[in-house]
Amino acid sequence: MKVLTVVKIGGNVVDNPEAIEKFLLQFSLLEGPKILIHGGGIMASEMSEKMGVETKMHNGRRITDEETLKICTMVYAGWINKSIVAGLQKIGCNSLGLSGADAGCVPAKRRSPEPVDFGFVGDVNPGDVNAGFLASLLGRGITPVFCAITHDRNGSLLNTNADTMASSIAISLSGTYYTKLIYCFEKDGVLSDPSNEKSVIPLVNTEGYRRLKETGIVSAGMLPKIDNAFLALEKGVSEVYIKNWSNITLSGGTMLKL
Amino acid sequence: MKVLTVVKIGGNVVDNPEAIEKFLLQFSLLEGPKILIHGGGIMASEMSEKMGVETKMHNGRRITDEETLKICTMVYAGWINKSIVAGLQKIGCNSLGLSGADAGCVPAKRRSPEPVDFGFVGDVNPGDVNAGFLASLLGRGITPVFCAITHDRNGSLLNTNADTMASSIAISLSGTYYTKLIYCFEKDGVLSDPSNEKSVIPLVNTEGYRRLKETGIVSAGMLPKIDNAFLALEKGVSEVYIKNWSNITLSGGTMLKL
Repeated sequence: MKVLTVVKIGGNVVDNPEAIEKFLLQFSLLEGPKILIHGGGIMASEMSEKMGVETKMHNGRRITDEETLKICTMVYAGWINKSIVAGLQKIGCNSLGLSGADAGCVPAKRRSPEPVDFGFVGDVNPGDVNAGFLASLLGRGITPVFCAITHDRNGSLLNTNADTMASSIAISLSGTYYTKLIYCFEKDGVLSDPSNEKSVIPLVNTEGYRRLKETGIVSAGMLPKIDNAFLALEKGVSEVYIKNWSNITLSGGTMLKL
Repeated sequence: MKVLTVVKIGGNVVDNPEAIEKFLLQFSLLEGPKILIHGGGIMASEMSEKMGVETKMHNGRRITDEETLKICTMVYAGWINKSIVAGLQKIGCNSLGLSGADAGCVPAKRRSPEPVDFGFVGDVNPGDVNAGFLASLLGRGITPVFCAITHDRNGSLLNTNADTMASSIAISLSGTYYTKLIYCFEKDGVLSDPSNEKSVIPLVNTEGYRRLKETGIVSAGMLPKIDNAFLALEKGVSEVYIKNWSNITLSGGTMLKL
């Protein structure tokens, strides 16, 4: 089976022109077929502020009303996605920017308005991803670059969690490829001591994860990332890593194991 | 040879939710492979104003500085493009949104800064369009939807004239398909009397066009559209029409002939 590498980068990289250029060069050096999923960064919040759109939150989570969806789509699917594509084309990586609506790649289900209405937010079922189309692009040597905007098949765009988007896409292709999923962020991996950047745990299994959660060592922001990582492993993805974005072609970071 | 229909719609349709829905339904009913190219509308200007970005003009033509490029990319490649794609998916037309950077589809050359520096503006050479990739999408039953953002192959996105984008794409595919190009706008065609909306000229040839220009009947805004139309015919496009966006599946409008 051919190896496919699925990489997710977060907002901290996307927001920094030097970092993103450095990252894209490394990403382009990954051998074989690959897919990039990018988060949004702070540009959407900055835009909302400039345009006088109020950011509505519930328990620390953003509510995507119509104006916010418009801004997120403009920033994620417009400026960030196309800038990344142009940056990859420059260095000879033939990339293609996609939202989940394009070619019906990643349909999503709008989240139930009960108990809290988060607005235009969608959840993805990996089984719904159009893996055949993605495989056909990969087969032509094209590198898909995804923003985390999807659609409900009924004309509405939806804001989606980029970590889930990445695991869903990786899962959907794990029948066709030996699939590696790499979550990149600004730390070197899962830390055993949050105050010590060097305390990377090289391997976390489900039992280890349970203990990390119990002791409260893993921070709230990391939980969905690791949950998505384990889900991916359960559903057929061969290898999952959490590592620094500046380090994707090298060893190091945290490997997740069931 | 299979028939390919390339349709360009302008900002007036894009800005109006009811009009765009009506248009997309008609567009989806066109038989056989098809491509849509959309203009930008007034949303980019509105955004610039809200964000306090000054619109710089030279002789009535917009200068695309860095901030303006960002806004145009967000609006055209982000919100408008993805809304159209989601709208087409809803009615069963499997569309894929593209900028010229995606899969290197439409590279452009940044316009010379002499005599006037229009900033991040690109001109397309039809020979540079990646027609093979577009044909492969069409062959899979996918309908490409283009915004008029291109790239210079060197990492910069460029703002491009949507009429030229449409003619370039049509020309590039005219060796593979019997290609029809339809420029849609809010009038019924080229008018012999600009004050009479019913005075549509059914056929304009090069000689007739020369006379229309001499007598000043054709307005300044129409000239680039008709110039692009004749260029397309010269370079191999089989049929070119200028007609009302509400009428693309029916006869009527103005047919251009060499």
